[in-house]
Amino acid sequence: MSDDRRFLGPARSLTLSAIIAAAGGAAAAVEERSFRGVAPLALAGPEEVSFCESRAYEAALRETRAGLVLVAAELASAVPAGSIAVSCRSPALAFGKVAALFHPRPAPDGSIHPSAVIHPEARIGEGTEIGPFVVIEAGAEIGRGCRIGAFSLIGRAVVLGDRCVIHSHCTVTHAVLGQGVVLHAGARIGQEGFGFATTEDGRFVTAPQLGSVRLGDGVEIGANSCVDRGSLGETVLGPGTRLDNLVQVGHNVRTGRNCVLVAQVGVSGSSTLGDFVMAGGQSGIAGHLKIGSKVRIGAQAGVMHDQPPGIEVLGSPAAPKKEVMRSMLVLKRLGMESRVVSKKNSE
Amino acid sequence: MSDDRRFLGPARSLTLSAIIAAAGGAAAAVEERSFRGVAPLALAGPEEVSFCESRAYEAALRETRAGLVLVAAELASAVPAGSIAVSCRSPALAFGKVAALFHPRPAPDGSIHPSAVIHPEARIGEGTEIGPFVVIEAGAEIGRGCRIGAFSLIGRAVVLGDRCVIHSHCTVTHAVLGQGVVLHAGARIGQEGFGFATTEDGRFVTAPQLGSVRLGDGVEIGANSCVDRGSLGETVLGPGTRLDNLVQVGHNVRTGRNCVLVAQVGVSGSSTLGDFVMAGGQSGIAGHLKIGSKVRIGAQAGVMHDQPPGIEVLGSPAAPKKEVMRSMLVLKRLGMESRVVSKKNSE
Amino acid sequence: MSDDRRFLGPARSLTLSAIIAAAGGAAAAVEERSFRGVAPLALAGPEEVSFCESRAYEAALRETRAGLVLVAAELASAVPAGSIAVSCRSPALAFGKVAALFHPRPAPDGSIHPSAVIHPEARIGEGTEIGPFVVIEAGAEIGRGCRIGAFSLIGRAVVLGDRCVIHSHCTVTHAVLGQGVVLHAGARIGQEGFGFATTEDGRFVTAPQLGSVRLGDGVEIGANSCVDRGSLGETVLGPGTRLDNLVQVGHNVRTGRNCVLVAQVGVSGSSTLGDFVMAGGQSGIAGHLKIGSKVRIGAQAGVMHDQPPGIEVLGSPAAPKKEVMRSMLVLKRLGMESRVVSKKNSE
Repeated sequence: MSDDRRFLGPARSLTLSAIIAAAGGAAAAVEERSFRGVAPLALAGPEEVSFCESRAYEAALRETRAGLVLVAAELASAVPAGSIAVSCRSPALAFGKVAALFHPRPAPDGSIHPSAVIHPEARIGEGTEIGPFVVIEAGAEIGRGCRIGAFSLIGRAVVLGDRCVIHSHCTVTHAVLGQGVVLHAGARIGQEGFGFATTEDGRFVTAPQLGSVRLGDGVEIGANSCVDRGSLGETVLGPGTRLDNLVQVGHNVRTGRNCVLVAQVGVSGSSTLGDFVMAGGQSGIAGHLKIGSKVRIGAQAGVMHDQPPGIEVLGSPAAPKKEVMRSMLVLKRLGMESRVVSKKNSE
Repeated sequence: MSDDRRFLGPARSLTLSAIIAAAGGAAAAVEERSFRGVAPLALAGPEEVSFCESRAYEAALRETRAGLVLVAAELASAVPAGSIAVSCRSPALAFGKVAALFHPRPAPDGSIHPSAVIHPEARIGEGTEIGPFVVIEAGAEIGRGCRIGAFSLIGRAVVLGDRCVIHSHCTVTHAVLGQGVVLHAGARIGQEGFGFATTEDGRFVTAPQLGSVRLGDGVEIGANSCVDRGSLGETVLGPGTRLDNLVQVGHNVRTGRNCVLVAQVGVSGSSTLGDFVMAGGQSGIAGHLKIGSKVRIGAQAGVMHDQPPGIEVLGSPAAPKKEVMRSMLVLKRLGMESRVVSKKNSE
Repeated sequence: MSDDRRFLGPARSLTLSAIIAAAGGAAAAVEERSFRGVAPLALAGPEEVSFCESRAYEAALRETRAGLVLVAAELASAVPAGSIAVSCRSPALAFGKVAALFHPRPAPDGSIHPSAVIHPEARIGEGTEIGPFVVIEAGAEIGRGCRIGAFSLIGRAVVLGDRCVIHSHCTVTHAVLGQGVVLHAGARIGQEGFGFATTEDGRFVTAPQLGSVRLGDGVEIGANSCVDRGSLGETVLGPGTRLDNLVQVGHNVRTGRNCVLVAQVGVSGSSTLGDFVMAGGQSGIAGHLKIGSKVRIGAQAGVMHDQPPGIEVLGSPAAPKKEVMRSMLVLKRLGMESRVVSKKNSE
């Protein structure tokens, strides 16, 4: 556990059966006991719950002093005698549920900070909590049970579904958000895209960016990430899609559901992604491309061409993993031959 | 058009002649008609104006139901019989002007939000609009007809020319901005650069960063982008230069006019760029380099050496496009030979 | 010097002996004189102090009109006759001290802006200055002599040591900061890390991120950079570690002291860095890696494997510098052979 429990709120006690129920798991012989929190395998004590995701952590599992461990069935036998083993299909998922039971997210309390500046023609749903210095402009419609953090700006006519969590310092303009959308601090949604024409005498003239952004249900955007509005249409992130921090999504991009863009990824304008596309950290996707569903893009890769569904690509320009591995083997072999030649030449 | 017109403001109606005049184009036989907006070729209806930038979009052009299409002269014959073709030298530029006519940017209204904290020794030009919770420090001089968005900070002695647009959440310190400069939300201008010396016992000591930032007329900075002030002199972005989102410009960098830095580009300290340099997304320029005018830097490239004017470079380390293409051909061929050898060896 | 002294505050006059004392240097024959500021070699006048870091700048040194130049001993003879040469072991360090003498950072003045929203259960140390619209939540403990800039949010139970400088627009939650920590504008400390599990039906469920961030004494974080809190434990940046702008540090990362992450670097979750690791601009470190002390990572490199202490790596995937240089030589030679072959073929 963090050396510092100061951020966790008051400690809770939960019974073994409550924990097993939350985990959706099974255990042999339930003798009622209490637990007081969660911890990693290496640090957990007899009153704490831990989990083991895979064999990769088996060593730590065998050494743990955790009172209860959530494990895949095949690892149950590796749980020390003093710990209760609870078998689950997905220990990580189960652990998340148990952790949430010990440390529930505070529900929005429906309070509106007196310093907030809310246009009389904005609509705020029941139970929504609004923090200090929030600005909500005319015509904005905010759903029920949302939380808007300090210094966030909800622009004119913006729509938020229910249960959205907008952390501090966010900008949300020209956007329609579904239910349960989460924006982390400093996220920028709906600003003008990067589009301009050049006059004959070389001046740049901004093309009016008249579109908007649509974020599907459950979309999550990381800290300081940016999603530009469409030039004429919508920039769309499909339901469940998640962006890490410092990610850039250009105007007119459309993604399907449950795409994952890791930190510092950039998607250029007008590219479309299918469902479940995974882009590794710092990778880039050029503009006007079609990326099929379930494509996996390696960290730092540079995708310059359309990609068929399911392919795994690496490198810059990105190529199928097999090809890239072959090229690297070739280079390596040449490097070795070259060393042999040099050696001969120096003899 | 965006499925959601809620962000566009009240609809306008414009006559055919007004549109042709704005576009600066020519059309055969002007029979007065009204139009109500703009839209892309695929979605436009008889009361909407669209444009076709090039042959790449000819298929969509032939199918459009737009009432009026702005086209290059050579594509006029491809415009369907039911649409009016208006020939222009640059359809994109013309379309921008027409779009701006339908959806004019609201002019700053000269209002100053009562929550703004403005130092009595700051000067605000006539017609400048200041939003909620803006902070303007002592000695700042803001031009006429500017707009400063919520939560932006204009620091001590900062100068803004006329017609600047500072969106929300910006930080502007140690900076002199020309006319018509645009900062998108979360832009950071004028903070300390990344400079420190190391003592004998290995501690870092920040070198005082005593310089400033100068942004020329018409410079535009994207959301969450950063421009550091000079260590002793100025960090300068020449007139018309544009930065996309999440771009980093280090201390003492100087650019000429109309440079374009696409999203997530980084320019290290003390490098100088000429005019019209174009850096593709996620590319990087190392420090203390001279990059000539009209250099084009590919996406994700890593420029490690000075570059003569007009060259196009790719890759990391960046090299002239021809060389890079050759290397890639060589690798490809070796990959194929390698496959042949492997095949033979397994026979 | 900056063409614009408007940001420097009132001019100061300092004596030669005060300057020599600050620089910790030595000069022949001290005849008392006054100086009025600092400037680069090319621009300095007789009343200004400059410095020459190395032979790379010898040409400028020989031409300077600076009244006093801080130099390494071996370059003292290159100082023009009209300038006073002061020998120092580290001219850059000495110059920093002299510059700070001319332009001291204003000390925090202990004022608390009336617009700040400070929870009654927060504790603010003596002499700490708090700017407009700052929000400080319950249980926060802020040390003495700190400065908190406009629009910064200090979250619940956060701890700041003495003499911290938090610039504007920062978010600090779930974090414990040591003494003298500096956060530049827009820094995001303590937000949730990027962690989620996938249900059987393909939904993403956020894993609760219950940890925190610990920033050691003297840590400095650049503008718009992000440091995520741990999932269960702490994300730790060791004393003296510095991040440039737009850097991402994922959850559970731990660094030793005096690490340097240049602009736009990304460190993925759960990687550990030793002391004095240097990561060049736009480089990336994959997750769950161990990077030894004094490792140097080239700009744009992609580190995919553990690295032993002291090694220098380049490229993506990153490899030891020697290997990379060899590969590039091989490719170059093949490119030349290929050109010879092409030439022959076309004859």
